[in-house]
Amino acid sequence: MTNTPNDKVNLVDKLQQFTEHWSPRIVGELNGQHVKLAKLEGEFPWHHHQHEDELFLVLDGHLTIHLRDRTVELDEGEFFIVPRGVEHKPVADVETHVMLLEPTSTLNTGNVRNDLTVDEPEWL
Amino acid sequence: MTNTPNDKVNLVDKLQQFTEHWSPRIVGELNGQHVKLAKLEGEFPWHHHQHEDELFLVLDGHLTIHLRDRTVELDEGEFFIVPRGVEHKPVADVETHVMLLEPTSTLNTGNVRNDLTVDEPEWL
Repeated sequence: MTNTPNDKVNLVDKLQQFTEHWSPRIVGELNGQHVKLAKLEGEFPWHHHQHEDELFLVLDGHLTIHLRDRTVELDEGEFFIVPRGVEHKPVADVETHVMLLEPTSTLNTGNVRNDLTVDEPEWL
Repeated sequence: MTNTPNDKVNLVDKLQQFTEHWSPRIVGELNGQHVKLAKLEGEFPWHHHQHEDELFLVLDGHLTIHLRDRTVELDEGEFFIVPRGVEHKPVADVETHVMLLEPTSTLNTGNVRNDLTVDEPEWL
C-alpha cells in the first residue's frame, strides 16, 4: 500500500512488507530527502555518492561500514553519516534492518552500476 | 562533548546527556538537515514552519501531534512528517524521547516566539 504524506509510519510494519536484501523502500519524504528502509545481509560493493550525504541508522542487527581508512561498527540505535564523496562498503554478517536518509536523487550504488542498482525505489 | 561529523552516534548515550524538555539537541547534519534529539513532556504551543517539513520519530514514550483537523498518535518506532505550513501542537502525557529531522534553518517554535524558543540549539 502506498504511503501518503499524511500517514504516520510504523517502522516494524513497513519492514514486514518486504524481504529482499539491499533493496531500499521509500517510506517518507521531506525537504528533498527520502526516508528509506532496507534489509541488509552480506557485502555491498564499494561506492560513493558525489553530492549526497547518507545516514545509516541501525534498527536491528549489526552493520559494519568500511571506509578506506577505518571501519565503523553500528549496533541497534546507532547511526553514522557517510559524507558525500567518501567511499564506503556496508557489510552485514547477520540480517540487519536500517533506516536510511538521503536526498531523493540518491542511487543506492552511488557512482557504480551493477546488479544491485535500484533505479526507482518503490514506495511502501 | 561535541560530535564531529566523523563520529557514529548512539541515541541512548546522547539522550543521557541532557534532561530539559522541549530543548532539542543537534546530533548530526546531512544535506542541509539537522538530526536532533529531544525530550518532550507536557504541551507545546501551536505553531507551523513556513518552509520546512519536520519529521518526528518516537524512540520512547508516546507523542500526540494535534493538527487542526485531526490528531496523530505516535508510539515507539513510529514517525510522522508534518508538512511545511501545517499548524501542529505536540503533546506528551509522559516523558517522550524523539528524533527530529528538519532543515538546519528550523526554529523549534516555528512562526511563534516564546519562552520555549531555542535560537541556537546545542550540538551534543
